[in-house]
Amino acid sequence: MASKNLFLLAGDGIGPEAMAEVKKLIAAMNGKLDSGFVTDEGLVGGSAYDAHGAAISDADMAKAIAADAVLFGAVGGPKWDKVAYEVRPEAGLLRLRKDMELFANLRPAICYPALAASSSLKQEVVEGLDILIVRELTGGVYFGEPKEIIDLGNGQKRGIDTQVYDTFEIERISGIAFELARTRRNHVTSMEKRNVMKSGVLWNEVVTQTHKAKFSDVKLDHMLADAGGMQLVRWPKQFDVIVTDNLFGDMLSDVAAMLTGSLGMLPSASLGAPDVKTKKRKALYEPVHGSAPDIAGKGIANPIAMIASFAMCLRYSFAMVAEADKLEAAIAAVLDDGLRTKDIMSEGMTEVGTTQMGDAIIAKF
Amino acid sequence: MASKNLFLLAGDGIGPEAMAEVKKLIAAMNGKLDSGFVTDEGLVGGSAYDAHGAAISDADMAKAIAADAVLFGAVGGPKWDKVAYEVRPEAGLLRLRKDMELFANLRPAICYPALAASSSLKQEVVEGLDILIVRELTGGVYFGEPKEIIDLGNGQKRGIDTQVYDTFEIERISGIAFELARTRRNHVTSMEKRNVMKSGVLWNEVVTQTHKAKFSDVKLDHMLADAGGMQLVRWPKQFDVIVTDNLFGDMLSDVAAMLTGSLGMLPSASLGAPDVKTKKRKALYEPVHGSAPDIAGKGIANPIAMIASFAMCLRYSFAMVAEADKLEAAIAAVLDDGLRTKDIMSEGMTEVGTTQMGDAIIAKF
Ligand SMILES: CC(C)[C@H](C(=O)O)[C@@H](O)C(=O)O
Ligand SMILES: CC(C)[C@H](C(=O)O)[C@@H](O)C(=O)O
Repeated sequence: MASKNLFLLAGDGIGPEAMAEVKKLIAAMNGKLDSGFVTDEGLVGGSAYDAHGAAISDADMAKAIAADAVLFGAVGGPKWDKVAYEVRPEAGLLRLRKDMELFANLRPAICYPALAASSSLKQEVVEGLDILIVRELTGGVYFGEPKEIIDLGNGQKRGIDTQVYDTFEIERISGIAFELARTRRNHVTSMEKRNVMKSGVLWNEVVTQTHKAKFSDVKLDHMLADAGGMQLVRWPKQFDVIVTDNLFGDMLSDVAAMLTGSLGMLPSASLGAPDVKTKKRKALYEPVHGSAPDIAGKGIANPIAMIASFAMCLRYSFAMVAEADKLEAAIAAVLDDGLRTKDIMSEGMTEVGTTQMGDAIIAKF
Repeated sequence: MASKNLFLLAGDGIGPEAMAEVKKLIAAMNGKLDSGFVTDEGLVGGSAYDAHGAAISDADMAKAIAADAVLFGAVGGPKWDKVAYEVRPEAGLLRLRKDMELFANLRPAICYPALAASSSLKQEVVEGLDILIVRELTGGVYFGEPKEIIDLGNGQKRGIDTQVYDTFEIERISGIAFELARTRRNHVTSMEKRNVMKSGVLWNEVVTQTHKAKFSDVKLDHMLADAGGMQLVRWPKQFDVIVTDNLFGDMLSDVAAMLTGSLGMLPSASLGAPDVKTKKRKALYEPVHGSAPDIAGKGIANPIAMIASFAMCLRYSFAMVAEADKLEAAIAAVLDDGLRTKDIMSEGMTEVGTTQMGDAIIAKF
């Protein structure tokens, strides 16, 4: 079996602790199933800045591009709050997204049945929730130029960012959303602010055309992004797949994640275009949660989002669908058994640390 | 008593029905209290387009600028979905905001006790909620140039919008937020995406400076806007005043409004700078809800948000604080009596139409 090259970027805060559980899992899979994973590790975020003065080194960047998949932990922390904008921890993640051309960010918002009661929303509103946010990840206001602060004199400065979208960018991200919808409940909701933004007008137009040309079997709705935020809070089950731009996707996927009451549990996948020859997509998998510096190093972080991100990696990068299903089932089973890390602890459950949670999932796998 | 000039722009959909209730209220106040309100009316949105081919005429724009306050209903509807971008219904509202220089949008998110159970969030999460979102309204990506769609040839187009903020704009909006916080729980949370946007870096810097220079008695926190969206859903009561830019404010205030379960009830005020001579601020008051074309003309729309917007007008434009308090109390009392329009109807309550709801509030006032 051909070897599968994984590049691990654990990052800062709880990133390394969560990644350690995935490393155990990979070792177990290589031992038990002869899965053939080969891993290498690099630095990203504050820890890369401390080592090389950049949020990711060129050498690690090259390894990320060459790998079959990148597993990413989390970046940032108060230690690096004052470093220059260009080398702040987030710059490492943004460079990975841009240089690997990971334009499609898949963020499932799933409510684990065992956790439905812990949402701030009423149980009937979130129970059984399963939506997928498809966020454009390499365009929009994140990367458009000019992006600068100008000194106007007289104590006045001007901060500028530019939102830019081209037809092809909207076409390819909506194509992915429609394809994924076909494997789900066949319904896409596209969100923008066409009533205020020209990029929103173009977004709406191109999604509509792409739908008509290639995906007319899928149900398509359009919603203004502010109304979309409202509807996510009011009745999230009305959605199946949501497709939206980089900034709206950032906001809306965070709101959606919080609805589920399962924030520490949610994975994400960032995918590039298929290679013309090998058909393989570049890919990076990361938990939705951040680096949580306040609980780092205490052995109490929840590793489930990182492990679930590895399940997405099995599914999307290696077509190991059975194994991905099995790993997701193992996570659900451990929760059903009442095991909880501190962040999701509730009365009558058994509180465990990071490694115990990882071990329990591996044991069920 | 000097006359108080109100310019009424009822707009489209349920706007005119909701405005009719405010007109009755104004007549009652002029009769009973000799309040001296003088009203004039104009067209905005789709109805202005139908009449003059523009979303607001220059003549009505001049009247809005000259008035002591503008009361605004709602704009838009499927009838105008295909009209050109420059004359779409929203353009009327955007022109009013820009030409009247209404840079400060105050959006209270209050959970009426009688309606706490109707939120999609758990009752304990929203009961007693009272937050105020202060949204910048004349800058950012709404108005920055370039804002255009360029034809690149080869079937490719490029949509561009520009986010721009100058120091003085951030200074004046955060100044309003700090001042309002002093009249409330003395706590401001500023939200931006400084980890991705240069305008966010400047926003953060200027809010921090303004705080240090003039408002250091107020508690100030900074939060990334995506995390802010999450925290609004998780535990909204952690907030008092939130200050943020035009686009984030659009999204976050809609999410906050939906949390309360009282969307049809929420008012807003949009204020300009005080005139150097008269010290009066230009002002426009409008409900947070939209034009709801699906229920327009049926006599079932909820007029409370429009009436509560008029209460804000009494408070901010005419310093009629006692009357504003009394009007807000009348709204709460009618809800406590069990009167409900269709949108907020629940078991055991009494369903009433638009005019009955208006009459009941006026009777309690
Ligand atoms: C860390 C930050 C740059 C990032 C973003 O804004 O995209 C994060 O919020 C996310 O959603 O992955
Ligand atoms: C109608 C629209 C232009 C407007 C906005 O985006 O500002 C609305 O959503 C609002 O929040 O007042």
